[in-house]
Amino acid sequence: MRFADNDPLNRLRFPIDEWALVETDFGMHDMGRTETLFAVGNGYLGLRGNVEEGRDGYFHGTFINGFHETWPIRHAEEAFGFARVGQTIVNAPDAKVIRLYVDDEPLVLTVAELLGYERRLDFRLGTLSRSIEWRTPSGKRVLITSRRMTSFTDRHLAIMDYEVELLDADAAVTISSPILNRQDGRDEYRSGVTAPPAGFDPRRAEQFIDRVLQPRVQRSGNGRYVLGYQCTNSGMTLAVGAEHTISTENPYTESGSIGDDLAKHIYRIQAKQGKPIRVTKFVTYHTARIVPTRELVDRTDRTLDRAIELGVAELFDQQRSWLDDFWARSDVEIADQPALQQAVRWNLFQLAQATARTDGDGVAAKGVTGSGYGGHYFWDSEIYVMPFLSYTAPIVARNVLRFRQRMLDAARARAIELNQRGALFPWRTINGQESSAYYAAGTAQYHIDADIAYALCQYVAATGDVDFLARGAIDILVETARMWEDLGFWRSNKTDDVFHVHGVTGPDEYTTVVNDNLYTNVMARANLAAAASAVDNLQVDNPIAYHKLVNRLDITPGEVASWRRAAAHMHIPYDEQLGIHPQDSQFLQKELWDLENTPEDRRPLLLHYHPLVIYRFQVLKQADVVLALYLQGDRFSTEMKRADFEYYDPLTTGDSTLSAIVQSIIASEVGYHELAMRYFRAALFVDLADLHHNAADGVHVASAGGVWSTLVAGFGGFRDHGGVFTFDPRLPDEWTKLTFRITLRGTRVRVELEPTTISFTLEVGDEARLRVRGAEIVVTADEPVSVPLLDQGPRLFGAPTMRDVEGSRRSDGTLLTASLPTLSLDPDDEEAPIPVD
Amino acid sequence: MRFADNDPLNRLRFPIDEWALVETDFGMHDMGRTETLFAVGNGYLGLRGNVEEGRDGYFHGTFINGFHETWPIRHAEEAFGFARVGQTIVNAPDAKVIRLYVDDEPLVLTVAELLGYERRLDFRLGTLSRSIEWRTPSGKRVLITSRRMTSFTDRHLAIMDYEVELLDADAAVTISSPILNRQDGRDEYRSGVTAPPAGFDPRRAEQFIDRVLQPRVQRSGNGRYVLGYQCTNSGMTLAVGAEHTISTENPYTESGSIGDDLAKHIYRIQAKQGKPIRVTKFVTYHTARIVPTRELVDRTDRTLDRAIELGVAELFDQQRSWLDDFWARSDVEIADQPALQQAVRWNLFQLAQATARTDGDGVAAKGVTGSGYGGHYFWDSEIYVMPFLSYTAPIVARNVLRFRQRMLDAARARAIELNQRGALFPWRTINGQESSAYYAAGTAQYHIDADIAYALCQYVAATGDVDFLARGAIDILVETARMWEDLGFWRSNKTDDVFHVHGVTGPDEYTTVVNDNLYTNVMARANLAAAASAVDNLQVDNPIAYHKLVNRLDITPGEVASWRRAAAHMHIPYDEQLGIHPQDSQFLQKELWDLENTPEDRRPLLLHYHPLVIYRFQVLKQADVVLALYLQGDRFSTEMKRADFEYYDPLTTGDSTLSAIVQSIIASEVGYHELAMRYFRAALFVDLADLHHNAADGVHVASAGGVWSTLVAGFGGFRDHGGVFTFDPRLPDEWTKLTFRITLRGTRVRVELEPTTISFTLEVGDEARLRVRGAEIVVTADEPVSVPLLDQGPRLFGAPTMRDVEGSRRSDGTLLTASLPTLSLDPDDEEAPIPVD
Repeated sequence: MRFADNDPLNRLRFPIDEWALVETDFGMHDMGRTETLFAVGNGYLGLRGNVEEGRDGYFHGTFINGFHETWPIRHAEEAFGFARVGQTIVNAPDAKVIRLYVDDEPLVLTVAELLGYERRLDFRLGTLSRSIEWRTPSGKRVLITSRRMTSFTDRHLAIMDYEVELLDADAAVTISSPILNRQDGRDEYRSGVTAPPAGFDPRRAEQFIDRVLQPRVQRSGNGRYVLGYQCTNSGMTLAVGAEHTISTENPYTESGSIGDDLAKHIYRIQAKQGKPIRVTKFVTYHTARIVPTRELVDRTDRTLDRAIELGVAELFDQQRSWLDDFWARSDVEIADQPALQQAVRWNLFQLAQATARTDGDGVAAKGVTGSGYGGHYFWDSEIYVMPFLSYTAPIVARNVLRFRQRMLDAARARAIELNQRGALFPWRTINGQESSAYYAAGTAQYHIDADIAYALCQYVAATGDVDFLARGAIDILVETARMWEDLGFWRSNKTDDVFHVHGVTGPDEYTTVVNDNLYTNVMARANLAAAASAVDNLQVDNPIAYHKLVNRLDITPGEVASWRRAAAHMHIPYDEQLGIHPQDSQFLQKELWDLENTPEDRRPLLLHYHPLVIYRFQVLKQADVVLALYLQGDRFSTEMKRADFEYYDPLTTGDSTLSAIVQSIIASEVGYHELAMRYFRAALFVDLADLHHNAADGVHVASAGGVWSTLVAGFGGFRDHGGVFTFDPRLPDEWTKLTFRITLRGTRVRVELEPTTISFTLEVGDEARLRVRGAEIVVTADEPVSVPLLDQGPRLFGAPTMRDVEGSRRSDGTLLTASLPTLSLDPDDEEAPIPVD
Repeated sequence: MRFADNDPLNRLRFPIDEWALVETDFGMHDMGRTETLFAVGNGYLGLRGNVEEGRDGYFHGTFINGFHETWPIRHAEEAFGFARVGQTIVNAPDAKVIRLYVDDEPLVLTVAELLGYERRLDFRLGTLSRSIEWRTPSGKRVLITSRRMTSFTDRHLAIMDYEVELLDADAAVTISSPILNRQDGRDEYRSGVTAPPAGFDPRRAEQFIDRVLQPRVQRSGNGRYVLGYQCTNSGMTLAVGAEHTISTENPYTESGSIGDDLAKHIYRIQAKQGKPIRVTKFVTYHTARIVPTRELVDRTDRTLDRAIELGVAELFDQQRSWLDDFWARSDVEIADQPALQQAVRWNLFQLAQATARTDGDGVAAKGVTGSGYGGHYFWDSEIYVMPFLSYTAPIVARNVLRFRQRMLDAARARAIELNQRGALFPWRTINGQESSAYYAAGTAQYHIDADIAYALCQYVAATGDVDFLARGAIDILVETARMWEDLGFWRSNKTDDVFHVHGVTGPDEYTTVVNDNLYTNVMARANLAAAASAVDNLQVDNPIAYHKLVNRLDITPGEVASWRRAAAHMHIPYDEQLGIHPQDSQFLQKELWDLENTPEDRRPLLLHYHPLVIYRFQVLKQADVVLALYLQGDRFSTEMKRADFEYYDPLTTGDSTLSAIVQSIIASEVGYHELAMRYFRAALFVDLADLHHNAADGVHVASAGGVWSTLVAGFGGFRDHGGVFTFDPRLPDEWTKLTFRITLRGTRVRVELEPTTISFTLEVGDEARLRVRGAEIVVTADEPVSVPLLDQGPRLFGAPTMRDVEGSRRSDGTLLTASLPTLSLDPDDEEAPIPVD
């Protein structure tokens, strides 16, 4: 196999496989990253890719979506309305460990002599498997084959297989399988091969000092072990149960023990050469906000009974079937690009692992793969993950929205604290309460309201599920519209009344608490208009639901009109001289940051400069105006998009992983094809190549979602503005074919994009109405449609450079200039910071 | 005596005395306030006005300027460059307690039957004395007379007198006199009559959880007790010593004991009716940053030896002499206004108590009277206290400036953290390190640099002490100018190059992190120009010092010119349409806060609204532009001042005590005489009538300094711009005469202002050159000068109301209006929130 020159992965260690991530050497120096890359999860339960034997590791993690501890936020200086209740995901008791001793020598991977090693995260099987050959200190060769999965069909269930075979001698084998409560991982740092993180990094989770999990239940019998816990402050409960089966021709004995923080089952086997031992561990987790531990224990019994009854083979078959369906709905294929194909599928697989079974909970920034960002839900889910869900997995999309709906009361309470009507959703949260302790880049991001409203409207447009609105989701639109109408205010200029929104922070966190942030105003406008339309539509379509709504939320006669009026008169800042949209009303007055002369070792800026320093400059953590150009693309002309992109792109550091994907999509649209590819790769490999040096904290789920958007909306050119599905494709030059599926109102369409045609084939459903570059087409089940393409859109070369804004110079009088950060590449160096093509 | 109708004090309890604050009823409900009002201090050592017997109290406080503990600031969300080292003044061991038992019944004021009670803080004697007559539970009448002082002549020394006389029977009397380490007051809240402060108030000090003072020395012998401590984190050391003398004809025995946190000396007396017992307690405190406790113990011995040798009478005489001199330099007399006169002298006396012997330390926001604001030094000292010092006590003024000079290295280090050249002084600090944990209203107040430079230039202009600059204080000017020149940046508009300063917070903390704050830019301009002039002058006047300076600070040839250029081209925002100076480049675009409809129970705003809400509006915590109009008054025309004052005054909440004094001065200048008086009274009574409900936390020292400025600069019309001393007086209508003294370049001038004349008489020195409304006059020792006055300046009536800014209206379309907060007055209610006339 030939490796691409620009491949950011070391292919000797991670060979290309289009349907799996494979590791062929055990790497000790980057266990944090590989624990993330090889994690398994189902959106509810996540197991980091820790070594089976459980000793070595960067962070031994088992996460359950929404299972969190609370703590009082102590502000160094208090102020009214600051967030009070900190929330942090808890590292649940670890049931994935299976320890092996041969002749009483433990297998510890970091010190063992390994004659063979392969680890494989299989995207179709939904399993992590490992095969190693170990030569024990006494020289015996042992083959160990193991497998691990968290079930997509039963979200409470995880299964581990562990098979041992003596290859050239007999030996005494002990297999010890614990459930170990690590108390949020504090112990690891003492024994792990990786040093604890030094210094501060606001992106990491708070460490607990006091005991989090209080032991409530210890129950064992008939080889089954159940431990029950309750969180000290949040009161949430958890039960974890395990039961084992063994299959071997060797003689063995078994025993077990149980305590507050440790239950274990032990097999002692007189192993003969060539006679394998196979132990299977069935594990189940149940959690709840208020249910007593006792009841959760009953649930673990039911799950284990059912799993053992079904049997391992059947459970793995179900897993595969589930994934067959997933890929049929979601796969994106890039012909003749196996390295990219692998990376794309890894990202899509991560989306399945982060979202599939969230059921009533949200999608955390790291899914269930790590404790980064404290396990919190952000706008990431609505803006970066929901598009993927709405167009490939509507049921899951609906669940995520229902989670926000459930949080509406908390958002109403928060609005009152912030002196506003309606509802203000928290910038970061698990339980619905604001948990952002730094309001300037937290609570001030009022756009979260519009983001949620956007995702809801997008879901309804994609699925046609207006019933969901009528059943109460419309309350989200009403309460967010109220917030905007109350937050903003009117001012008259010479010709018109204008609606302004002041004192907010947009997506770009390198500029905070500003007036008339472009993104916020554009999104608020859409929010207000959508709420008005939804209420009016409901009145026509479903008068009963409408009257219930009016009563429930006390909607006054003039209210809907006032939203429309605010939307119609929303201030959209525009600079005539530069011909661009200022990010906010003061942005263009600021000094330009000299990115070109900012050394790499002072990046990302947030870790090396005081916020006051950063805020003083025109410099972006992430796309802000450019994101608006994408999400509200029908409100901007092509010329505007190009001008804005060319202005902001050179100012954008990409210090946030939420940036590259949007930059790629708009670069594609306006014609910077090479640049679009560069940003696409920056998103695609953000975790695989650890481009932001924090893959160890968990998968960047939003970026994974963005990879799908980059493929479908960026290169595929798909847009959906108000339920009109359009295509204006931008196939990269070096690609021969891009194939993806989208589900539109229940109809699944396979889209095949080639240099000179785009073709549509129905895979499910009867008919789809689409537009390709203005031309309306109808696809039916009988008749695929192929549309010829003259080109792949406009074509610009290179990358925009920092605009020489009139009058901007340094104190010494020289004019400021800057450019994109210098990109370096060493194909042999898998730590290369940013991949290029 | 007749009480003025508008007197905010209950004169039945606090009768008027022009030279003392007198209390004639023991008040249990407001002990926090009276502990502050009756505190004694000398700028180094402060004893709160706690009852002698030490049981009852709101907060038992003994404070030593600069004696602090440090603690790591834990930010709920971290960011680069956030302040790291919290600093909090320590409540030192309490040596002021003297307990009395008669027939073993303790005297506890809150439960005792008091037949007589008077407490008196005497402004000429410098003592707090108390006289009570107690009827014991068994019916015996006891007269107790006590006195307390902290010495102005020996700053380490405090003396307490305690005299007991049985009036109608014999009794067994025990006097127990402890030194009690209260460990920062945590115990009081359990036993005190006042509940601990509930809820949050950012203006209070942090409470420590762990032990702060580690016992290091306990030494007793020959009736002397010394305890030595070291702070756990800061390592600062303290020794406190006490020795007693007794004078009585009654037979007595004495004994004592000592432990880690308690030393006590006990007298048991067989007291006969009519035979008084007088116990005198000599107390001394020594503190140091690095000196071992052992050495401090030696110092306590020397202080106590010397004090006992001098004797009580002599020490009290010295105290009186010191104050005679103080009043000769500093007194301000208002004829025929005894209630105001008393309040004025109380404020001036507080300035003596806060500043007299700071020696190498700064002037804390609460002086040494409380732990409010953690004992930190702010710009308060430079802008509000230094004028008083520079014109009445140059030596003290110089000490305060030397304190800043000593902190210059820390300010250099802080500038580097904030990515700037030069020096950036901390917004709040004790040890020189930034201790503000909320940067938006802390570190962002870059104007602290210009404030310090301003105070330095003012001192030099007032005293002519250019030698102080040459000896190194000029470094402050150079390093602050460098900071400004580096912080700002150049931008060209159509006609000119303009120097902008972005991302700073001005004095008004209800608007943060803005561009081109008017106050900041105006003060930075002066800072830059002053540095340039000082360096150039030094080159001419003192070439050797100049060359040392250039070498020491590596001043480059073009540097001085670049400061001048930045100053000359500094952007001073001005709105042509409104004819006012915007507080910052965005201020006028904001919505107007409807102060009129803001209920009193939601004031101050900072305790009832999230910062994001407050920041979104045109509403001021305190004067900002208006302060610039005062400090840089020669840079604004009379018309500008009036227009700016009329615009901003109705928007100013006065939620900061730093506001009223400036509002009064400018109201006087532009002609709002009644309003000026209203603001003057708001400052004058801020503590005496507890107008801000936090007098319990300590004296508002800056406001006390401002009272002096209001009298001298506001009503007296004194200004000093660049060493030109001018008078343009504004005697209030209801006053017949205002007399004050100022010391100008060593010459002390008595100024007597009457309705039709202003007279100048030299008290010390040979000659003073002054200007009265443009006319130059020379005053010599032989010849007082009297200048006739046609009027007391322009005359405007009422108060400005909120300007109807075009296009400003509420969301419902109605125009916003507002006015000054409604002032209520009940002359019988000493808790009245705001006094009016």
